[in-house]
Amino acid sequence: MIKVAVNGYGTIGKRVADAIKLQPDMMLIGIGKLHPDYEALIARKKGYNIYTSESSIQEFKKAGIEVAGTIEDMVKESDIVVDATPDGVGEKNKPLYLRYGKHAIFQGGEEPEVADVSFSALCNYDEAINKQTIRVVSCNTTSLLRVICTINNKVSKVNKVRATIVRRAADPKEVKKGPINSLIPNPASIPSHHAKDVNTVIKDLDIITMAVVAPTTLMHMHFINMTLSSEVKKEDIISAILDTPRLLLVSGKSKINSTAEIIEVARDLGRYRNDLYEVILFEDSIYTKGNELFLMYGVHQEAVVVPENIDAIRASFSLMNAQDSINITNNTLNIMKGYLI
Amino acid sequence: MIKVAVNGYGTIGKRVADAIKLQPDMMLIGIGKLHPDYEALIARKKGYNIYTSESSIQEFKKAGIEVAGTIEDMVKESDIVVDATPDGVGEKNKPLYLRYGKHAIFQGGEEPEVADVSFSALCNYDEAINKQTIRVVSCNTTSLLRVICTINNKVSKVNKVRATIVRRAADPKEVKKGPINSLIPNPASIPSHHAKDVNTVIKDLDIITMAVVAPTTLMHMHFINMTLSSEVKKEDIISAILDTPRLLLVSGKSKINSTAEIIEVARDLGRYRNDLYEVILFEDSIYTKGNELFLMYGVHQEAVVVPENIDAIRASFSLMNAQDSINITNNTLNIMKGYLI
Repeated sequence: MIKVAVNGYGTIGKRVADAIKLQPDMMLIGIGKLHPDYEALIARKKGYNIYTSESSIQEFKKAGIEVAGTIEDMVKESDIVVDATPDGVGEKNKPLYLRYGKHAIFQGGEEPEVADVSFSALCNYDEAINKQTIRVVSCNTTSLLRVICTINNKVSKVNKVRATIVRRAADPKEVKKGPINSLIPNPASIPSHHAKDVNTVIKDLDIITMAVVAPTTLMHMHFINMTLSSEVKKEDIISAILDTPRLLLVSGKSKINSTAEIIEVARDLGRYRNDLYEVILFEDSIYTKGNELFLMYGVHQEAVVVPENIDAIRASFSLMNAQDSINITNNTLNIMKGYLI
Repeated sequence: MIKVAVNGYGTIGKRVADAIKLQPDMMLIGIGKLHPDYEALIARKKGYNIYTSESSIQEFKKAGIEVAGTIEDMVKESDIVVDATPDGVGEKNKPLYLRYGKHAIFQGGEEPEVADVSFSALCNYDEAINKQTIRVVSCNTTSLLRVICTINNKVSKVNKVRATIVRRAADPKEVKKGPINSLIPNPASIPSHHAKDVNTVIKDLDIITMAVVAPTTLMHMHFINMTLSSEVKKEDIISAILDTPRLLLVSGKSKINSTAEIIEVARDLGRYRNDLYEVILFEDSIYTKGNELFLMYGVHQEAVVVPENIDAIRASFSLMNAQDSINITNNTLNIMKGYLI
């Protein structure tokens, strides 16, 4: 049993903690959290041990929320820490984890240099084996890599990727973030950081990305143009996707024509928090022209990196090979393959 | 003096009517409108003659809005009708215009077959000379064509265009349209109609477009990847844009990093209705890699086709050559070149 702590209990952290509880080979030591807010209350209701900073203990006491100790105590008790603190904070926490000789998983908001390797389960699990520190790339990069590696491994070598990323402006709970009515190039310069981030995993890929923020909270969307090393048929692309868990198709026939309808299906299916760990590809968008492939998909930014965090833990301790880890993660999280519905 | 009627007085029609009033060689006969709403009241305040259908005259009388006659009367009194009625209605109106031997300008919401030629002033003005019916392509296609033809004519032959279009969901006044919180592939199939529409003007261009609707009202945005017939430098692209009215640059230095800030500048500059006839390119987004060019720009969907409607009228009667028409249109509408600010 690997003893796992989750430091940071926001959008990603709370989902990773829940996922760890479902793994047969992992034990959740507890979660690190600085403020006794509604999310802390829910963590207690779930029975999670809450660890906080020395200076926050009093605040938690006042709020009547039991604290198990300091974050340093939590680190000491665990084998590995999944750091899901805000962008850039993970780097500051790293010395604490290393001081006690612990392993650590960081998120894509950190610079690649924070860890020994940047990670995507479908692309480079083997590279992460026995690495003490692993960085799970961001939600957008995770999705790009899942799609690129699937095409690359199952259809034809991917020579070139040109992608436009339409980012959700905020997560549903982030009431202070905007915009309400604007498109914001993110950034206005090209390429966006996503291309560079893909290159942390597939070093030699010719990829250029453009990104823009749109006023929506539900999902990102990606618009992909790939050049492959051979002519491809739409059917081959569909077969490869249907054969790959963590990628799902939606068909126009089912009248799912937007990110809102995708999320409505997740709600109707009873997915906890309407989470979609899978990349949701619009089947009708798959279009080929010679060596070129075009497609569109939606990315549930709150959930998509959760399975990769779980696999990264197993890789870090060399618990099992890629396929075995991916299978257990998929089974425990009820991750599907084929059609969403 | 060309006698011009504008049939349909919505987003495009009211702007075209105002623009016609500013032309030294045109006279506004009046506008055709079916409902005595606030826009009709404002048209009367401006002193525009309002023509309506036989069946709507009573409704206008009840509302106390003076009517100059029927739409058929308006057609008879004019040399040319700019049809700015909703998508598909122009085609139904066409027989009325032809019955009286009139010229007509249609909008991009009509099928290309509605007119003798599809039109973009910077691309194919000469093709439209002496054509009785001309279709001004849509706001998105107009912007694509302005950019493509500028690069093609002033920098290097454009061999291939791959573009993602992020469309505004509704115009500011359209309170019944959505989405409020979703991205909607538009359509989920590839290519979107914009590629085909560009090909109505540049017949042999290899262009594929993808489109998505985002919850915003201010501007569309385009994300362009072009392959040119030679290597290009960023400076050459900037020079070509700076030299072309109807294209404007914004720089990150001026802290204009979103469509909302672009529109705020239009408001601060005192632009009537905050209209931007120009395509607004993000200077920092211009990026070249070998023969490839990438860039991003915003399109004010309410206003961008107005100058092309004016030029189309002149081409239809062979009043003058392209450059002279474009110059007069630009001067009368205060269309800029260079930097927005």
